[in-house]
Amino acid sequence: MSANSFGHIFKMTSFGESHGDSMGVLIEGVPSGLEVNSEILNQFLERRRPGQSEVVTSRNEADLPKILSGVFEGKTLGTPIAVTIKNKDQKSEDYKNLPERKGHADKVWKNKFNHNDPRGGGRSSGRETVSRVIAGAFAKMLCLEILKNIKVEAMTQKMGPIEDIELMGGLPTQTGFSDNDLNEEAMEMLLEAKAGGKSYGGVAFCRVSSVSAGLGQPVFKKMKSELASAVMSIGAVNGFEIGDGFEATDKEGSVYHSENTGQYGGVQGGITNGEDITFRVSFKPTSSVLNVAKQGRHDPCIIPRALVVIESMVWMVLADHLLWSRLDNLK
Amino acid sequence: MSANSFGHIFKMTSFGESHGDSMGVLIEGVPSGLEVNSEILNQFLERRRPGQSEVVTSRNEADLPKILSGVFEGKTLGTPIAVTIKNKDQKSEDYKNLPERKGHADKVWKNKFNHNDPRGGGRSSGRETVSRVIAGAFAKMLCLEILKNIKVEAMTQKMGPIEDIELMGGLPTQTGFSDNDLNEEAMEMLLEAKAGGKSYGGVAFCRVSSVSAGLGQPVFKKMKSELASAVMSIGAVNGFEIGDGFEATDKEGSVYHSENTGQYGGVQGGITNGEDITFRVSFKPTSSVLNVAKQGRHDPCIIPRALVVIESMVWMVLADHLLWSRLDNLK
Amino acid sequence: MSANSFGHIFKMTSFGESHGDSMGVLIEGVPSGLEVNSEILNQFLERRRPGQSEVVTSRNEADLPKILSGVFEGKTLGTPIAVTIKNKDQKSEDYKNLPERKGHADKVWKNKFNHNDPRGGGRSSGRETVSRVIAGAFAKMLCLEILKNIKVEAMTQKMGPIEDIELMGGLPTQTGFSDNDLNEEAMEMLLEAKAGGKSYGGVAFCRVSSVSAGLGQPVFKKMKSELASAVMSIGAVNGFEIGDGFEATDKEGSVYHSENTGQYGGVQGGITNGEDITFRVSFKPTSSVLNVAKQGRHDPCIIPRALVVIESMVWMVLADHLLWSRLDNLK
Amino acid sequence: MSANSFGHIFKMTSFGESHGDSMGVLIEGVPSGLEVNSEILNQFLERRRPGQSEVVTSRNEADLPKILSGVFEGKTLGTPIAVTIKNKDQKSEDYKNLPERKGHADKVWKNKFNHNDPRGGGRSSGRETVSRVIAGAFAKMLCLEILKNIKVEAMTQKMGPIEDIELMGGLPTQTGFSDNDLNEEAMEMLLEAKAGGKSYGGVAFCRVSSVSAGLGQPVFKKMKSELASAVMSIGAVNGFEIGDGFEATDKEGSVYHSENTGQYGGVQGGITNGEDITFRVSFKPTSSVLNVAKQGRHDPCIIPRALVVIESMVWMVLADHLLWSRLDNLK
Repeated sequence: MSANSFGHIFKMTSFGESHGDSMGVLIEGVPSGLEVNSEILNQFLERRRPGQSEVVTSRNEADLPKILSGVFEGKTLGTPIAVTIKNKDQKSEDYKNLPERKGHADKVWKNKFNHNDPRGGGRSSGRETVSRVIAGAFAKMLCLEILKNIKVEAMTQKMGPIEDIELMGGLPTQTGFSDNDLNEEAMEMLLEAKAGGKSYGGVAFCRVSSVSAGLGQPVFKKMKSELASAVMSIGAVNGFEIGDGFEATDKEGSVYHSENTGQYGGVQGGITNGEDITFRVSFKPTSSVLNVAKQGRHDPCIIPRALVVIESMVWMVLADHLLWSRLDNLK
Repeated sequence: MSANSFGHIFKMTSFGESHGDSMGVLIEGVPSGLEVNSEILNQFLERRRPGQSEVVTSRNEADLPKILSGVFEGKTLGTPIAVTIKNKDQKSEDYKNLPERKGHADKVWKNKFNHNDPRGGGRSSGRETVSRVIAGAFAKMLCLEILKNIKVEAMTQKMGPIEDIELMGGLPTQTGFSDNDLNEEAMEMLLEAKAGGKSYGGVAFCRVSSVSAGLGQPVFKKMKSELASAVMSIGAVNGFEIGDGFEATDKEGSVYHSENTGQYGGVQGGITNGEDITFRVSFKPTSSVLNVAKQGRHDPCIIPRALVVIESMVWMVLADHLLWSRLDNLK
Repeated sequence: MSANSFGHIFKMTSFGESHGDSMGVLIEGVPSGLEVNSEILNQFLERRRPGQSEVVTSRNEADLPKILSGVFEGKTLGTPIAVTIKNKDQKSEDYKNLPERKGHADKVWKNKFNHNDPRGGGRSSGRETVSRVIAGAFAKMLCLEILKNIKVEAMTQKMGPIEDIELMGGLPTQTGFSDNDLNEEAMEMLLEAKAGGKSYGGVAFCRVSSVSAGLGQPVFKKMKSELASAVMSIGAVNGFEIGDGFEATDKEGSVYHSENTGQYGGVQGGITNGEDITFRVSFKPTSSVLNVAKQGRHDPCIIPRALVVIESMVWMVLADHLLWSRLDNLK
Repeated sequence: MSANSFGHIFKMTSFGESHGDSMGVLIEGVPSGLEVNSEILNQFLERRRPGQSEVVTSRNEADLPKILSGVFEGKTLGTPIAVTIKNKDQKSEDYKNLPERKGHADKVWKNKFNHNDPRGGGRSSGRETVSRVIAGAFAKMLCLEILKNIKVEAMTQKMGPIEDIELMGGLPTQTGFSDNDLNEEAMEMLLEAKAGGKSYGGVAFCRVSSVSAGLGQPVFKKMKSELASAVMSIGAVNGFEIGDGFEATDKEGSVYHSENTGQYGGVQGGITNGEDITFRVSFKPTSSVLNVAKQGRHDPCIIPRALVVIESMVWMVLADHLLWSRLDNLK
């Protein structure tokens, strides 16, 4: 019944309208004694922040988080952690006299609730994801405390026509591609798109490594189900596949199951098997750019800034199930 | 925290091991006064039942449901509805001395819980889905009471190499294809597969029509997120996409958003917009067939029997959100 | 949102109408590997069973529990445990032509749901508590596994005019008094009441000993709040007090807090402090006896049979919070 | 699993440590379109505020609430409503070098979580109830919108040795007694207590009038169970009885059930019957006063300020069940 909450034990509740007073998040279920690592928190906010490069929206958000509760002398108390971020630079007049925005949630939302905050999409704005990365940062701190080497890495695999077929890994770039050449190509495309009121969707690839076996709960809280629910809750996402996904449908079973290529994506019977968890997420093209291009504070492709949102959702799922697994056995 | 429950208001909890005494389901949240339509219930069980055709497992399950509570004089009481189905024809010796089954959940499950029921996969068996179709049938009854014309139709779009590109609709066939020629082709392939210990995955397509706008709850219980979570909880499913899904990533935004082709899959901002909801689900190839082919009581492709499971999950999501929407407004 | 569920991690859902097919319970959250102790289960059912003595209803319930799922080779699987009990000896005609039953829930229930099962109160019948003692038995097994010496003992402290002022403990009697003389006195009173269509309320006292400190969760799942919620859900209960309760209001604070008499009832700040938990529960007089006395299958005082129901609810709260406390700390 | 949340549909989550940055509350489940009545909000905060009279703690809390989200142009949006209040005037040195505080939760809490905020009790402080009255005010607004004439009135029935036997009603006084003479008597007693480091417990009486029948949900969310859980979560409360409560145990059943004196407290079978809901709550004597009397910022009796906290919890239960009852029937 909690529309704005995510998670079972590690649970976050997101609040705030994009042009209201503040965005915020309430994080419950973090055990007492966890050291707060503000570097992780700031890095997550930084990666999501608009305006870090030419190809993302120039909306200026300082995004300074304020921890209101749940932390004392740098450590969590086992009580709810509330964190808020002031909204500023709102220019709500940008939106006021615009005609209906194509592809936007405004209309369905308005139809559902009768009364809504039209400024910048209100709560349906992508700004809501700032709450997620804050919670994701705390989830990451918790996971690292339990599993020293666990890693979550999301990267761009495809952006409009540009695709990274090899996914060799490497340092993340501005566009999220791990390949420098593709990054340059993509930068060019996005700058052009920004000028011309165009936009692109794409595919993100995510890998979780050094994760323990046994995470996920049968039968409705399978790891694949939890991950799907997590990433499909992100605004522009319209597809999810784990391991081989749709591609698996091309293979005959005796071949498919004999492979040793991570075809299951690290999840069998809904439970992690100890191998890397891998999945892919598809994004439809940004809609905002089409409407307010000239006044422009929107992203021609949302993926570069969405990667950290994906990672945040994944960290939350992992933190949640690491805690949940404490309840599996008698001792 | 309810691993075996699905739904928020309309809520089902599934129980039972495949070779234990019974399978069953507890359905909560159905308002009082709903007439129980046993035709819908039987039809759902029939469509899922093994042994209806040559190309599905011959395991013989009578699957006679017994309603233990929650119904009086043919109508629901507003109290929990418990329904059970006896397990029979179990031949657990089939499984006892088999080597580890490739691609099966047995090992991860065992590793997680230490103690498990190894007979036929126990609770990780596909037999668990019988609980889902029972709950799905009740959900369908409820939805039809609220929205007279609402329809949910899942069909086979792809089975191994065979693909239905046009999806014209039509009466469902044994293989789930709506096209008769493709059905015959698929029948032949599956018979051969059954004989040769082969198996296939595929893709199911699902359409919800005559659904009302305004269903789904922001921001974590978006309709797309709920549907993904629902179908990804089905055993062999490894991918989900709504509307254009992964294909959307090939289109430039100004083109994409100008189309009028159901590209959003009936969901915008996470909320139904009144158009048909459409989504696709991918299945990996069945693993059971590889191990016990000769003793064979397994399906060379699970999709024909899984279609009604998909529909059941969707009916539950719809029933849940139809009830939830009663809480949206002040009056 | 689960009207028929109790508990957060150790969670039971009760189902069944008193004159329907079966009563039952679904128990979730029991870790895998717990040995099922049928002696505990049978003893709990026996203590609740009607007809064990002259002073309780003669309704004949065999109450043979059937475990449908969740247990394999005598040990729990970590999956939902479903247990059912057939209803028999229902004589529903007893109730059919009776005028409205004074003090009964029938009318409010009917008004709420429009459609209800009028036979024997349907789901509002005290028969529902059979589900609770089954779940309570499993909770007791779990608690004993974790805390070897923990004990829960409920006894009659007051029955109509008869009161046990000293509460010395001792073997429980038919009337629940731990004092033999009071038991004889009470037996006499109840036999007379049964013959004369009279009934009595009373007070039960409950003590939990050898319990660990640190159970309960601030701020809304305090141990005292959880216990109150648990016992106030029992049909005839209309009062609850922990430790000194209402009596504490007669003492000045510096006196009250200097005592060492268990005045806090083992709970401070909502958390167990390691001392015995003690509380008292008041019951209003049985209403059934007034209406169907002559046809009589009702108890002139419900407390003797309710003691095990209280204990069951307490075991569930304890099991739940023992599991929950696993999540308090980082390690 | 939400230790800091209360309610099912109308749900509040409380956060904040008494000497941390802020106290706050997140309110979910309020439908869109409710007008925010700041008079109700301010009145509730005013009634709870320390320092309004000589006999309550002089701790100076401005308690200006700030609405961060969920409200636009004076009306609720159907999104989470976050409200915070800055902590000030904290004088944490008052507490730092004090010996262990008798009767306080500090020790059990510390033992449970290892790491805690010792300043003023941290989260176990009575200051936490400020979050409750904010949520209670919103609940009241919602209830009044649905049931124009509904009223919730809590008053002092007993304070130490002073007792109001007649409970005639009347305007609330500083001490919460509705009788002026008793109020004067109590004022005198409390001034003396404050000077002498004494404290008193007592009993509050609460009446809900003009409430609709049919509220409450069988079998574990009965109205009496919900109310008990609600008020027992308040710090110093150690007893609850509905209607006649413990007194009912003195009456023979045929007499008891023939009365027409509100003996059931407006609840039968767990469901409201349309009559006034009445219940009583016992408080143990304040413990703080004993320890820091001279430095004094504590109440010699907590009841005067606790009455609005009780009312707040009741409004929340009512709002929750008014919404829940929308789900009872088919239409």
